Amino acid sequence: MRVLLTVSYDGTLFCGWQIQEGKRTVQKEIEEALFSVFNREIRVTASGRTDSGVHALAQKAHFDVESNIPADKIADCLNRILPDDVKIVSSEEVGADFDANRTAKRKTYCYSIYHSDKIQPLKERYAVKYSLKPNISKMREAADILEGEHDFKAFCASGSTVKTTVRTIYKIDIAEEKNLLGHELKIYVCGNGFLYNMVRSIAGELLDISSGRLSLESLKTALETGDRSLIGKTMPAKGLMLVDVVY
Amino acid sequence: MRVLLTVSYDGTLFCGWQIQEGKRTVQKEIEEALFSVFNREIRVTASGRTDSGVHALAQKAHFDVESNIPADKIADCLNRILPDDVKIVSSEEVGADFDANRTAKRKTYCYSIYHSDKIQPLKERYAVKYSLKPNISKMREAADILEGEHDFKAFCASGSTVKTTVRTIYKIDIAEEKNLLGHELKIYVCGNGFLYNMVRSIAGELLDISSGRLSLESLKTALETGDRSLIGKTMPAKGLMLVDVVY
Repeated sequence: MRVLLTVSYDGTLFCGWQIQEGKRTVQKEIEEALFSVFNREIRVTASGRTDSGVHALAQKAHFDVESNIPADKIADCLNRILPDDVKIVSSEEVGADFDANRTAKRKTYCYSIYHSDKIQPLKERYAVKYSLKPNISKMREAADILEGEHDFKAFCASGSTVKTTVRTIYKIDIAEEKNLLGHELKIYVCGNGFLYNMVRSIAGELLDISSGRLSLESLKTALETGDRSLIGKTMPAKGLMLVDVVY
Repeated sequence: MRVLLTVSYDGTLFCGWQIQEGKRTVQKEIEEALFSVFNREIRVTASGRTDSGVHALAQKAHFDVESNIPADKIADCLNRILPDDVKIVSSEEVGADFDANRTAKRKTYCYSIYHSDKIQPLKERYAVKYSLKPNISKMREAADILEGEHDFKAFCASGSTVKTTVRTIYKIDIAEEKNLLGHELKIYVCGNGFLYNMVRSIAGELLDISSGRLSLESLKTALETGDRSLIGKTMPAKGLMLVDVVY
């Protein structure tokens, strides 16, 4: 049967999702746990890689196995083995044509920033300090330009080898959220797929437009020309979280 | 001059506030930073110790120094030296009769729990998993009994040497808070002072009453007799945060 896992992890101590020789990765932890449970090597396929330090509330991944364990009980079996910074939220049987990577229709990421002139220890793990006051209406104008189908070549980090850099961003939500620790600015980006470092580049672009360092015009030109030198800096990994993948 | 520091820390990697030989503590980090800034040994006095693993949004501490650095600039000087898991929120000059420990009028702690049958990696650092559904109205009834002036001897961990175990709890707030990661239950406890492990024992008591393992009657008897064997378990340190100290 084919099994779909929903996986949550704190990315801080992981070198990202994908298996790399000698590195602690989320895929490696899960495949080792699968080996312990099923006593054979099983390869998992995620909706996509996440980079070193990036968090996930609900990453999705599938694998194939023949087993008497009901699909929905596999989560508990794996969780007994997995460390506390990666756990299986749920496991379910899916059809043989389901592919966590190729059939993903929509992904949502969240980038978290807090506005402060000082590092706040209790926010530092999952958000990035930003010393200027964000201009949300200006960020919203930039978000309006980014929404829709565009060639996001300018937002793709070098070293990536993809067939096309055209992607559709369905929605960018910019929300100020308040809790016990104070305010946080959340940038939710929902799209049909993302290029390498694309969400972190978008977060940097929105903040550079907020501060006036870049203009809406330069953003339009960057989208038209694919010129990476025109866009904002790539923001740090720890502020990024994969929130959801829809099939 | 006497300087009051407001200090925030992620307690995870600290053996609590107080200096102990060979241990990483918050007080040690701050006193080492003060030594770097002022080139002399300076002792800081906190509003109270926090245990190993307990967090603080706004711990208060004072020290005396003769210096040309304006009091409000000391925070920045210290923050350039301090590690990211402990930072000074603000520094200000106070009168010579101010004492961060002895003149504290009111302290507020928050205990965070999340209801889930599975460990949630992104909540684990600052909250404690609780597998039963909390019965908030029952917890509220127990909180009503705890509020006011009582002898909290039953809620004081052994090994403590205090003159009196009488304390006043001004208010216990039980709030369900929702964010991107889901729901959390927050127990805010505000009082004129707290015994060793008292808030963590109160959190355990409220949950044991919620689950029906303990009764409101047994709580009343525990308050009357000081019998520690009658109360709930002491909850883990990581769910506890010192929120505020008022003078």
